[in-house]
Amino acid sequence: MTDLTDPVALASDLIRCPSVTPIEGGALDLLQFWAEQLGFRCTRLSFGEGATSVDNLWAVRGEGGPRFCFAGHTDVVPPGDMDAWQSGPFDPVIADGRLHGRGAADMKGGIAAMVAAVARAGERTPPLAFLITGDEEGQAIHGTKAVLGAVEARGEGFEHCLVGEPTNPDRIGSMMKVGRRGSCNAILTVHGRQGHVAYPDRAENPLPVLQRILTALTDVPLDDGYDRFQPSNLELTGWGTPEGAENVIPASAWTRFNVRFNPNWTGETLVRELERRIATAAGPTQWHLAPRVSGEAFLTEDDRFARLVADAVEAETKVRPELSTSGGTSDARFLSRHAPTIEFGLVGATMHQVNENVAVEDLEALTCIYGRILAGYAAW
Amino acid sequence: MTDLTDPVALASDLIRCPSVTPIEGGALDLLQFWAEQLGFRCTRLSFGEGATSVDNLWAVRGEGGPRFCFAGHTDVVPPGDMDAWQSGPFDPVIADGRLHGRGAADMKGGIAAMVAAVARAGERTPPLAFLITGDEEGQAIHGTKAVLGAVEARGEGFEHCLVGEPTNPDRIGSMMKVGRRGSCNAILTVHGRQGHVAYPDRAENPLPVLQRILTALTDVPLDDGYDRFQPSNLELTGWGTPEGAENVIPASAWTRFNVRFNPNWTGETLVRELERRIATAAGPTQWHLAPRVSGEAFLTEDDRFARLVADAVEAETKVRPELSTSGGTSDARFLSRHAPTIEFGLVGATMHQVNENVAVEDLEALTCIYGRILAGYAAW
Ligand SMILES: [Zn+2]
Ligand SMILES: [Zn+2]
Repeated sequence: MTDLTDPVALASDLIRCPSVTPIEGGALDLLQFWAEQLGFRCTRLSFGEGATSVDNLWAVRGEGGPRFCFAGHTDVVPPGDMDAWQSGPFDPVIADGRLHGRGAADMKGGIAAMVAAVARAGERTPPLAFLITGDEEGQAIHGTKAVLGAVEARGEGFEHCLVGEPTNPDRIGSMMKVGRRGSCNAILTVHGRQGHVAYPDRAENPLPVLQRILTALTDVPLDDGYDRFQPSNLELTGWGTPEGAENVIPASAWTRFNVRFNPNWTGETLVRELERRIATAAGPTQWHLAPRVSGEAFLTEDDRFARLVADAVEAETKVRPELSTSGGTSDARFLSRHAPTIEFGLVGATMHQVNENVAVEDLEALTCIYGRILAGYAAW
Repeated sequence: MTDLTDPVALASDLIRCPSVTPIEGGALDLLQFWAEQLGFRCTRLSFGEGATSVDNLWAVRGEGGPRFCFAGHTDVVPPGDMDAWQSGPFDPVIADGRLHGRGAADMKGGIAAMVAAVARAGERTPPLAFLITGDEEGQAIHGTKAVLGAVEARGEGFEHCLVGEPTNPDRIGSMMKVGRRGSCNAILTVHGRQGHVAYPDRAENPLPVLQRILTALTDVPLDDGYDRFQPSNLELTGWGTPEGAENVIPASAWTRFNVRFNPNWTGETLVRELERRIATAAGPTQWHLAPRVSGEAFLTEDDRFARLVADAVEAETKVRPELSTSGGTSDARFLSRHAPTIEFGLVGATMHQVNENVAVEDLEALTCIYGRILAGYAAW
């Protein structure tokens, strides 16, 4: 059996499980087996139906004090271009001091470090939980959010949470995340009237109207930032018109965009502001906005917890991590509603790419950092 | 045999030929048969290969003086929604004083009036020509332009030209065309770099650049008009981005537009101006403009010829026609390079639509107008 104190061996075992979302691939089974060896009481929580159903693991150990939760995911993104991989994406290989394989950084390596840290700590830990989902890289509907709902319904939970996502851009220790921007995707459609280009007066071209709306949406910044946050940003991701002949003014036009927003906004106030700008620019032209807020902005303002994590990182790496809120969304958006949540993990430079890899010494360092956090938390 | 002096009978015969571009459908055969009855020497000119090849008719009569050319097309646009036709598109029906059928207005009715005018005039006409194409509604590559090339190569030609397109918006006599705007279709592609919306700094979003370019192309008018011409107009007709995930900044974006331009521009100077505006707005971003000039602007400045046509129209209809340059392109763009060209025909209100129709009395009036023009020209 694999040595539970060795994060490289544990990460390798997890990489061998082809757990591409929403497939469990044996990764949660393996993790549950290890957790049970370490005295955890495990519950598997499955959500969704048929081919898109997703498995999740909730595991707890100990009582009598604030519970510390390690959170993360065992699912991985698809391998991508198989020919570009120097070794098999699900065949862990160590070369030049680096462990290669899909999920090495995001985030089977992080989960391996969590398990190894607990194994090394023996009995000297606070009450613990593992909340590990198989649906982080997908729609995230049947994952962390659903597990939290079930756990809360049972009257269980945790007081603080650490997510093992790869937060460091290039070297371990450089960045932890204490919040994340919210995210809103939207499709905006403008309706005009079709006609021949030689007679634009007899048609209503939706394209200049949409052009004017886009200017109104992007010319004036949404805000100029928020404590620890970048300014909110609206990014166009596509536009289109129905198939048509080249001399024909189209009947409609659409554009698609994403807004990453800081705590100046909730999804609701943001959508209201977008609608206000659109209505002003559109005038009498018909339009339809279809927004979908996939995460609210959050900021973990528990300074004592942030200091505990930052101190552990600095003690191990000699680097004081930046307390950042940058980057994409993660399951921290759900976890933070339950308890103060911070993210810290490996170096994410190769995540979601071919030849994903992490330094073996970073796996060891992260295990020690997680150990220091557990020890510090137990001493609170 | 059909009475060659009866424009309604001739138009009906032509409508019975299902000559949807590029199909000849018997229409040119019929016209050649009539022209030969009237003493014309006929040449059929076929261009293109296989299924897209197009037939055309060049017919001449008489010598010794400036030659007057009647020009037009026997091809028609497809019927469209067959269920919406009250009678068969290729079954001419007279109801409520109107002749119904595809091509009644555009422009089998016009050709019928030309033939009837010549038949009524007997021998008392100037030297004449018919230049009738089967490729006006299509690409127009194998039609009038190619015929003119062949005719000029043989040392033949004409001194003035009348095109029988339906130039009147609502009542016969209201409008003749003494020029047309040029037309340029273009596709503009902007190249950026793909990336995740959460990290726009690592990508290069082509959409805001294209948005900026569109503003540069449309904010400042190309000109403020030209004698007898509307201002040149740039009309957006479509835009798009490659298929992509909703959180991904696309690698490229394109837009499509059409410019109708007056004689302030040639196709060449126009494209140069577009490129200048694009380059300024694009900055270092890569872009590619693919323009296609399908017709230069022209203005027939032969006032004596214009007066001859306008006088004939007014004498017959009691309306002084507007000398216009509005609307789409027509084969007049090619003919005008050979000789002064004017367009006058039926009422175009129903052209290209289902239940296309013209007033029977308009067919008679147009025949008389064409007769007056022939008589006037012979007297020059
Ligand atoms: Zn992840
Ligand atoms: Zn026509």
